[in-house]
Amino acid sequence: MALPTQSADFPAWYQEVVKQAELAEPSLARGTMVIRPYGFAIWEKVQRAIDDRIKATGHQNLYFPLFIPYRLLEKEAEHVEGFAPEVAVVTHAGGEELEEPLVVRPTSETVIWATYARWIQSYRDLPLLYNQWANVVRWELRPRLFLRTTEFLWQEGHTAHETEDEAVAEARLILDRVYREAMVDVLGLPVLVGRKSAAERFAGAVETFTLEGLMRDRKALQAGTSHYLGQNFARAYGVTFLGRDGKEHHAYATSWGASTRLVGGVIMTHGDDRGLRLPPRLAPIQVVVVPIYRSDDERGRVLGAAAAIRERLDGAGIRVHVDDREEQRPGFKFNEWELKGVPVRLELGPRDLDADQATVARRDGGGKEAWPLAGLPERLVTLLEEVQRSLFGDAERFRDDHTFRPGSYTEMAELLDDPGGFMLAPWCGGPECEARVKADTRATIRFLPLDPEPVEGSCIVCGSPATETAAWAQAY
Amino acid sequence: MALPTQSADFPAWYQEVVKQAELAEPSLARGTMVIRPYGFAIWEKVQRAIDDRIKATGHQNLYFPLFIPYRLLEKEAEHVEGFAPEVAVVTHAGGEELEEPLVVRPTSETVIWATYARWIQSYRDLPLLYNQWANVVRWELRPRLFLRTTEFLWQEGHTAHETEDEAVAEARLILDRVYREAMVDVLGLPVLVGRKSAAERFAGAVETFTLEGLMRDRKALQAGTSHYLGQNFARAYGVTFLGRDGKEHHAYATSWGASTRLVGGVIMTHGDDRGLRLPPRLAPIQVVVVPIYRSDDERGRVLGAAAAIRERLDGAGIRVHVDDREEQRPGFKFNEWELKGVPVRLELGPRDLDADQATVARRDGGGKEAWPLAGLPERLVTLLEEVQRSLFGDAERFRDDHTFRPGSYTEMAELLDDPGGFMLAPWCGGPECEARVKADTRATIRFLPLDPEPVEGSCIVCGSPATETAAWAQAY
Repeated sequence: MALPTQSADFPAWYQEVVKQAELAEPSLARGTMVIRPYGFAIWEKVQRAIDDRIKATGHQNLYFPLFIPYRLLEKEAEHVEGFAPEVAVVTHAGGEELEEPLVVRPTSETVIWATYARWIQSYRDLPLLYNQWANVVRWELRPRLFLRTTEFLWQEGHTAHETEDEAVAEARLILDRVYREAMVDVLGLPVLVGRKSAAERFAGAVETFTLEGLMRDRKALQAGTSHYLGQNFARAYGVTFLGRDGKEHHAYATSWGASTRLVGGVIMTHGDDRGLRLPPRLAPIQVVVVPIYRSDDERGRVLGAAAAIRERLDGAGIRVHVDDREEQRPGFKFNEWELKGVPVRLELGPRDLDADQATVARRDGGGKEAWPLAGLPERLVTLLEEVQRSLFGDAERFRDDHTFRPGSYTEMAELLDDPGGFMLAPWCGGPECEARVKADTRATIRFLPLDPEPVEGSCIVCGSPATETAAWAQAY
Repeated sequence: MALPTQSADFPAWYQEVVKQAELAEPSLARGTMVIRPYGFAIWEKVQRAIDDRIKATGHQNLYFPLFIPYRLLEKEAEHVEGFAPEVAVVTHAGGEELEEPLVVRPTSETVIWATYARWIQSYRDLPLLYNQWANVVRWELRPRLFLRTTEFLWQEGHTAHETEDEAVAEARLILDRVYREAMVDVLGLPVLVGRKSAAERFAGAVETFTLEGLMRDRKALQAGTSHYLGQNFARAYGVTFLGRDGKEHHAYATSWGASTRLVGGVIMTHGDDRGLRLPPRLAPIQVVVVPIYRSDDERGRVLGAAAAIRERLDGAGIRVHVDDREEQRPGFKFNEWELKGVPVRLELGPRDLDADQATVARRDGGGKEAWPLAGLPERLVTLLEEVQRSLFGDAERFRDDHTFRPGSYTEMAELLDDPGGFMLAPWCGGPECEARVKADTRATIRFLPLDPEPVEGSCIVCGSPATETAAWAQAY
């Protein structure tokens, strides 16, 4: 079935790509999804990109339980206010009603900091630099595959530190060296980073850092967050340590998470009207070989050559797949692999073999040409890097083309309406102005500069003196 | 704190090893555990060993939801009877009571086969060869860390096939090429494989294949199972396909799982009175370097040499850690790394350096000797393989030494009591005899021969003609 175009109906386009490319589908319990093998293979690459960097920056993985006693959730006041309305609660187990209900974790600060209270005694026990890969549950009223599901998969890092400076540096390290690097270098997402306004902060955080991407419908997507939590959780769960000064102190905390939502971000950043376009470093299949033949003789010859090419590409470290399905014609296969976003297609027919060549087609729109079989693996390695850069470049250009500095509130509201994108404008720092923009345009402050300096000029909303530049956008 | 000895109190020994080696600890919700970083690093190696082989045998990973609508569980009669008493149930979410309660998955056959009904239309859609890594929940009255916890981590494979033969071959393939290979080659567990008796089968299975290890307390541990499910789930969830004969058929199923329980199996198979002993292929740290010095001068020299050795070992693909903690003395470090089961320790002091050597100590009991620094990485690679073989050999010998062929029921009961182990004895196939052994000795049939042939002689319990040889043992 043909895809809707992005311009005609972006949500329908997204839904059909997720379905037709066999990435995911809704499951039976409300708001949950099945991540299908092709979608999960992409997620495994996302995990690898993030996990490698989590470990390279000195963190270790561990695992905390799914269930959290309800009373634990209630100890940090802001946190419970933020999450209590969204939790799923287990009231019965083993055939009996539980004495105390259990919350299915919406995030794990509570159980982790209750445990850190036992692990942390002295400054010598610090820092704790831990992460877990887990499923979490937040009841969603308007679920969308990958973007907002009742259950999702993510990693959540939880660190404990001796000083505020060290904890803030940790939150920034994760932002820059883990998330931004993985998103830019592997996922090809030209994310922008900054701080959240107070209204948009994580429940219980002192400061939330964020990475924001711009999707092809000119809406922003929060791709990951890293929180400096101050001593809030240490106070709530009684986590103190004997400091170098011989006194008891509360530990400083960070937490940070990135989730299966990133798969949605990849789809909506790189996709086009023919479907998914996957950056080669993320693609489960980087090169697909489609054999073309008419007779049985041709078939044997072409499939033999395809197998030889697969072996050579595999030896060069390329993730290659030969689509030797008998029941489908080449044109059907071309469409299907385009829909699935495979970066490079090799067409191989008798005429190609006669000329010792293969036809190479790029999914990023770079056209199609005949390449000699000699030296093919090396040239393809180079081509894949080129496609990686070109997809990132496309996305960056698109974002820049949809980043505006409106001169007035009216202009900002008009631009938000059409074409949409990021609006960089001076802000007085007042939550009333932030609320007014949201009420008028549905846009929120996506991020504020990391190291804010006072700006010239007046707040684009109220005209009072501005304190910094905010980036507004409508968002997922 | 000193460990209890294995012979004095095996359960206390196990509990203390898990605690002191910082593998895991009980968490707040009943029967749940925190898997600590060192324990989780071992689990990650177990996962890698199994996941690599799952993929190498042609399977793909995907992900199904945590929550299963209660009514789904009820569709396969035997299955619900087996699992309903153990499930945890979510009755409230998003601040409201749910119209239909949700079961937290105890295993995923139900939701997966309800979904396969949509994915399978024709024999061309078969086989489906899928696996997921997930957490599952089964309410446990007597939890034990790793061995039996309310929530545990595992992989569960779920495949669908056109024919019975193909499905049975799949269940056997997983048994041999995935589980046995990973357990024998990486975890160093000399598991025995076989079929379960009807009484010990998975709820809903036609045939359950099992891998059984013998622990150091002479109790057996079920290390993994692979089930041939026949058409039971296809019938319960309406999974039919148009066959090559133009008719509708129900698909044939397998499922198979291995869990964090394997970490417990590693501890209890290889551990000794000084703590854990890890097979090198599984060990997060294969070689620990302990620098020895008295003065600041010596310190600089020894730490410099240790760093150089670390680099060389790292370059040779060895997982190496330099324990440069200032606040602990070498003797303390020796004990700690022995407790944590690191296969090889390198001691490095000024006298070693004067002689261009390091002192190499094996955790498997192979002693301690001085080795020249020249050629050290290559020799250590060889040594690690030797330790891998020696731990496997120890475990295999221990199992063989505790495998008996009792001549009478009285002798079998005595041997089960002391010293314990596997009892191979003829069985008539009657569930009454099986039940009697369990009542008398707490031993169950751990496995039956894979391809049973009638045996000579009479059932060791009732004296009727025996149909096959059963392996009895007390078990976890």
